[in-house]
Amino acid sequence: MILNFFKVLNMKKTTLLLLTFFLNATALFSQKYLNAQESDPMKMGWMQGFPTSEKTLALASDGSFFKFPALRYSVCHMRQFLPTTEVSAAQKNRYNFKVKLDPKIDKLEFTPLESNIKMSWSESLYKNYTDGILILHKGKIIYEKYFGALKPEGIHAAMSVSKTFTGTLGAMLVSEGLLDENKTADFYIPELKNSAFGDATIREILDMTTSLKYSEDYSDPKAEVWIFSAAGNPLPKPENYAGPKNYFEYLQTVQKDKGKHGEVFAYKTVNTDVMGWIISRVTGKSLTRLLSEKLWKPLGTHVDGYYQVDASGIAFAGGGFSANMRDMGMFGEMIRKKGYFNKKQILPKSLIEDIMRGGSQQAFKKSVYSSLNNWSYRNMWWITHNKNGAFAARGVHGQTIYIDPAAEMVIVRFASHPEAKNAKIDPTSLPAYQAVADYLMNK
Amino acid sequence: MILNFFKVLNMKKTTLLLLTFFLNATALFSQKYLNAQESDPMKMGWMQGFPTSEKTLALASDGSFFKFPALRYSVCHMRQFLPTTEVSAAQKNRYNFKVKLDPKIDKLEFTPLESNIKMSWSESLYKNYTDGILILHKGKIIYEKYFGALKPEGIHAAMSVSKTFTGTLGAMLVSEGLLDENKTADFYIPELKNSAFGDATIREILDMTTSLKYSEDYSDPKAEVWIFSAAGNPLPKPENYAGPKNYFEYLQTVQKDKGKHGEVFAYKTVNTDVMGWIISRVTGKSLTRLLSEKLWKPLGTHVDGYYQVDASGIAFAGGGFSANMRDMGMFGEMIRKKGYFNKKQILPKSLIEDIMRGGSQQAFKKSVYSSLNNWSYRNMWWITHNKNGAFAARGVHGQTIYIDPAAEMVIVRFASHPEAKNAKIDPTSLPAYQAVADYLMNK
Repeated sequence: MILNFFKVLNMKKTTLLLLTFFLNATALFSQKYLNAQESDPMKMGWMQGFPTSEKTLALASDGSFFKFPALRYSVCHMRQFLPTTEVSAAQKNRYNFKVKLDPKIDKLEFTPLESNIKMSWSESLYKNYTDGILILHKGKIIYEKYFGALKPEGIHAAMSVSKTFTGTLGAMLVSEGLLDENKTADFYIPELKNSAFGDATIREILDMTTSLKYSEDYSDPKAEVWIFSAAGNPLPKPENYAGPKNYFEYLQTVQKDKGKHGEVFAYKTVNTDVMGWIISRVTGKSLTRLLSEKLWKPLGTHVDGYYQVDASGIAFAGGGFSANMRDMGMFGEMIRKKGYFNKKQILPKSLIEDIMRGGSQQAFKKSVYSSLNNWSYRNMWWITHNKNGAFAARGVHGQTIYIDPAAEMVIVRFASHPEAKNAKIDPTSLPAYQAVADYLMNK
Repeated sequence: MILNFFKVLNMKKTTLLLLTFFLNATALFSQKYLNAQESDPMKMGWMQGFPTSEKTLALASDGSFFKFPALRYSVCHMRQFLPTTEVSAAQKNRYNFKVKLDPKIDKLEFTPLESNIKMSWSESLYKNYTDGILILHKGKIIYEKYFGALKPEGIHAAMSVSKTFTGTLGAMLVSEGLLDENKTADFYIPELKNSAFGDATIREILDMTTSLKYSEDYSDPKAEVWIFSAAGNPLPKPENYAGPKNYFEYLQTVQKDKGKHGEVFAYKTVNTDVMGWIISRVTGKSLTRLLSEKLWKPLGTHVDGYYQVDASGIAFAGGGFSANMRDMGMFGEMIRKKGYFNKKQILPKSLIEDIMRGGSQQAFKKSVYSSLNNWSYRNMWWITHNKNGAFAARGVHGQTIYIDPAAEMVIVRFASHPEAKNAKIDPTSLPAYQAVADYLMNK
């Protein structure tokens, strides 16, 4: 039938149709998405100058501004779509990195996981839809690239890398004695007494070993994540909406699952949002203000970051942070240097050592992340327990702060990969980071 | 009946009731609003930490977050409610003011307009619901105070002071030859051909002498401003919404009124938004980016400002700017110094001299603002033509940048007065500014 159809067309049209068919087939069967170069948000011309309606990515109720390829623009401009609140950068004692770029890194080769075809570092950046990548070695910038919509002075959504900031601040308050990690959440927030968090300890929340009746399966329309999302949506609620109106109301309703707290690592965003609430309750400050005062200002950051907020102005602690890449690098380097950065001890050394020792590998093994062999989760950091002792902050679509103590290396990557899950992105990332580490250790 | 009612109560209750009655009567008949101290947004506890639902000021479709007294919080936190886009501050060569505070200013006295009772400067700040006030004399800070929700490193909505930035940038492009002030808008934007702007010149738009069928009377439900507001609203449109979806679509629909362009000063926000479009078209840049590159960075500002945007990410040129007070002071001082500031000529001297000469006083006299005796409007600045040659940027609820060349004085004021109209605020402002000017000139 297709052949018959082609016969009625002249040669030129046939060629065009065949080409279209071939391209569609390619798209369908081998490469579902536009590649990094094809989906370049600047070439798309979205939201430039005084855009026509056709070049507009609007905030629609279907969240289309956050779907690939529009995602490639919106990750760098979250606040053009949503209400936000600042994480003020330093106004004095700003830190400036020394820069000594190493041109050899682009040519480093590695073998992606589950593959036997070598790939170069520079090739991997396109494969991963990288928007920005920074490599620090012994505190100096040795590699720095910007793609897509990201500019050196710009910001990018950190997604679940945000969790690591909440976890680190929570652990800091434990160090300072403002929080007792063995006390349950209801001790600090009585309103949580009848929720799943009521009898969960601060430690269980920080390490996400709570047992929650809470599904983050976006493909299930009955998953609790949808109620969470509706509650956190800052826009006016629909007229007949009867659900929780903000994080404050929603978190009190989370129920316990069958298991006990403390036994299985279960990566669920609401743990971080509850930690944000606990942090605010014991300090009397918003998470954004505390992050600015305790980290962003002492680090000497240059660019105000921001959090997406709910209708009450509450920061989305579990995933709403956007920040500048070099500023993220300052944070990563401070952690690598066990809290010391910009001429001061910003976090206690013991806190970083606790993160590096990691959480329960047994609890991790029982989780859906068991394919990440021997890993653990501590204070909202991912600990690889590899030979270099690497650990990381990780967010969907390819965000990371990757710290390799043995190689004295910190990598920050922002990306806008079409697929959310890191399982799709790790194969061309983790071995690439290891290749750079190996190179630096033998340099 | 009231007396009978009191009889049944004991004395204490009666006193209380009488007091309540007196306070209510006072509120009804002489002072409709909570005063500045009573409406202090920090004491109200709104949006602090992890606020309960009762302490929430949410973005509702009725815009309640922007009504007094909620306004007192939201003016300093517009981006907690709305999508925004940055006006990036300087990353290098930041300017630092010299400070030499003059304690005598608080005690200066003046007679408010239409009154014969003297008022002190410090008293006027509460009367005006001042959130922040800065006085520069010969370029030094001699007075600086913060109230309400404003912090030194914070930002505040500039409201129609925003227009002055659009007008100044438009006039700059005229100076640079990128715009010809005698050409009509359709020369630069053919899409405007069939709108009222089609045959309006750049000069008429910059001086707001266009003749537009456009009412900004918010009390008239049929006023065009409602269509403009709906178009500019960044939130997803209601399901059956058939109107313009952004500024780009709306501005093309504005129709001409009976009169000719160029004859009467008619203060209408859409002129500024059209100028924003023209600026973007001829420079290929968004207004926010141009403002950052041409003014905010060269001035050496410290804090990123931002604009409220529509669904297409287009800045609300006519009223959407929020900025830091000292940064506003840098802009004002640069204008007073005829374009020279932070060791460079930022705007051409001739441009500032053109603003200071003013626009048509005849066109102004025919406007609804005729009570502002002898004033004129030029490049979206208000020119007083008083003996000191003072001129100003002005926004509703009390925002201003007031420049007095003779007194070598610049005043920046941010406020959250319950009433929008400056007619309610000028009586305790304009003579107060004159009193400071007189004092400085005789010092």
